[in-house]
Amino acid sequence: MPRPTMGRMSKTIINCLPLTDEELRAFYDAVAGTGVRQEFAGVAAQRGMMGWKAIVPAELRESATAVIGNIPPDECAQYPHLEWLQTWSAGVDRYLAPGVLGERTQVTNATGAYGQTVAEHLFAMMWSLMRNIPMYARQQTERRWHDLGAALSPAGATVLVIGTGDIGSHFATLCKAVGAHTVGVRRDTTRPADGIDEMHGFDELDTLLPAADVVAMAVPATADTYHLIDGQRLTLMKSTAILLNAGRGTAIDPRALARALSEDQLHGVGLDVTEPEPLPADSPLWAEPHCLITPHVAGGNHLAVTEDRIIAIALDNVRRYAHGEALANRRR
Amino acid sequence: MPRPTMGRMSKTIINCLPLTDEELRAFYDAVAGTGVRQEFAGVAAQRGMMGWKAIVPAELRESATAVIGNIPPDECAQYPHLEWLQTWSAGVDRYLAPGVLGERTQVTNATGAYGQTVAEHLFAMMWSLMRNIPMYARQQTERRWHDLGAALSPAGATVLVIGTGDIGSHFATLCKAVGAHTVGVRRDTTRPADGIDEMHGFDELDTLLPAADVVAMAVPATADTYHLIDGQRLTLMKSTAILLNAGRGTAIDPRALARALSEDQLHGVGLDVTEPEPLPADSPLWAEPHCLITPHVAGGNHLAVTEDRIIAIALDNVRRYAHGEALANRRR
Repeated sequence: MPRPTMGRMSKTIINCLPLTDEELRAFYDAVAGTGVRQEFAGVAAQRGMMGWKAIVPAELRESATAVIGNIPPDECAQYPHLEWLQTWSAGVDRYLAPGVLGERTQVTNATGAYGQTVAEHLFAMMWSLMRNIPMYARQQTERRWHDLGAALSPAGATVLVIGTGDIGSHFATLCKAVGAHTVGVRRDTTRPADGIDEMHGFDELDTLLPAADVVAMAVPATADTYHLIDGQRLTLMKSTAILLNAGRGTAIDPRALARALSEDQLHGVGLDVTEPEPLPADSPLWAEPHCLITPHVAGGNHLAVTEDRIIAIALDNVRRYAHGEALANRRR
Repeated sequence: MPRPTMGRMSKTIINCLPLTDEELRAFYDAVAGTGVRQEFAGVAAQRGMMGWKAIVPAELRESATAVIGNIPPDECAQYPHLEWLQTWSAGVDRYLAPGVLGERTQVTNATGAYGQTVAEHLFAMMWSLMRNIPMYARQQTERRWHDLGAALSPAGATVLVIGTGDIGSHFATLCKAVGAHTVGVRRDTTRPADGIDEMHGFDELDTLLPAADVVAMAVPATADTYHLIDGQRLTLMKSTAILLNAGRGTAIDPRALARALSEDQLHGVGLDVTEPEPLPADSPLWAEPHCLITPHVAGGNHLAVTEDRIIAIALDNVRRYAHGEALANRRR
């Protein structure tokens, strides 16, 4: 007699992660004795490469009840039995758009895997600007040995962190560890965040900006954050301040920023995100000596540890799925 | 009847520090009631400028018993009554050279004022190289939006600190604060140092190098440290390792380093000191994409806090001198 679960659709997970042999065994162990099937479609050689690709053989799509990996959204219609999609990204907007997935499909993401890499990139940009390193790196191409003057230190400085989720909280923790005082701004001020000495609401931003030595932004793109830092707010900042953005480019008005830089209103600016992206070749920001631009490389899988965490999140959810438990990191 | 001390030469301190009004008052307070005279020859406008100049009016030199400031060594002969010289530098070699100062002249320096700035510069170079920032800064001049691939993190990394004095110890403390394991190398392994998890001797260097993710050098120029990192030792390092030097340029063999970089033997190199200095325009190191060169700017008075500390050291010694106590930071 078939087992009762066989009467329904049997569960089949298509796993597109690039796994080591050891990790593969852990995924087998996670479903052992549950009757859940797993198909491994990942390409191990993608490990360590920027931007994994999820390639699911066409013949597996019909029977899949779960997929681990960022399959093309326009391919989702080919998975009629999909109960669960686990992304390796933090963002899942493309899958939550109407008509992409069935109503009953759960979506889980890799939130928590990217906080360290983005926060560390912000931290590296901050230190670089404090010690004039982007300018020294450019001067180096002229084989020029020339002192560019005073440097700054985060020790004793006030760091204002706008957006205190996974990234902002991790960045604040790093800043505190090297002697900074950290001030957070978030929507819900009753929610504490690791690394933040004092929390404030967005309505207090204008009184906080004049006191900040560093302003670091890690806010998502919403109507509330559009041009959150505009020309007026840039004039509130210290002329020795450093402004960093690794959230969404739209949070800073790029024309106002270019104007502020051309008038030496800030010590330095570090942008990993811009409006628009890629930054157009005719943007005046490219040529500002005190502006450091990196091409949206703070996140992604630039750090090996990010890949490890994505896999750990997926492994935990595979075990939960196979045992009928509630999934973690649910976005729908 | 004159006070007994007046029978001898009365003590006169020529102070060349660029002082604020508040600091000036503190120096007056430090000698109050002792009969010690002070002449202030400093130029307040030098505060915050790289490289202070000590300019002592010729008529004051004859009577000076103490000078605070790096007067020109060849001018020292014009101070026949000099008992004490307090430098604002850490190095005092030029004053200890034979014939520069009288036998009985005490020399004190500003050791302790420079540890933070040099350590933070090493730290900034490390983070910059880990996130490929020098390469992004150069790419920016081409207005190019292009991902340069994987990044590194100090979290969980092993940082080898060669030379664990004021600078090395401070740098190690910063690295530990962001999650690194720190290994120190010093001559006297029985002396502990803040921030160092495990201490080893120079004789163990060859076994420590293959395990290091970061190698940071802060050793003085001595016969022992000449080309301490040579071609053979460079081959012992990981291909993902970062090598930093802010001690003396002669501690690394520049030809061997250029060869190692051209053969991709290291992830990145950060040099604030070179052999020779300035680095000659024909050095191949200028053009190595993975080499960051800064022109000996880690120390000096690039940080405001360094100036504050120099003044605090001098103030403490003025008080000691006026009260007949032993001076701190004595080098002779």
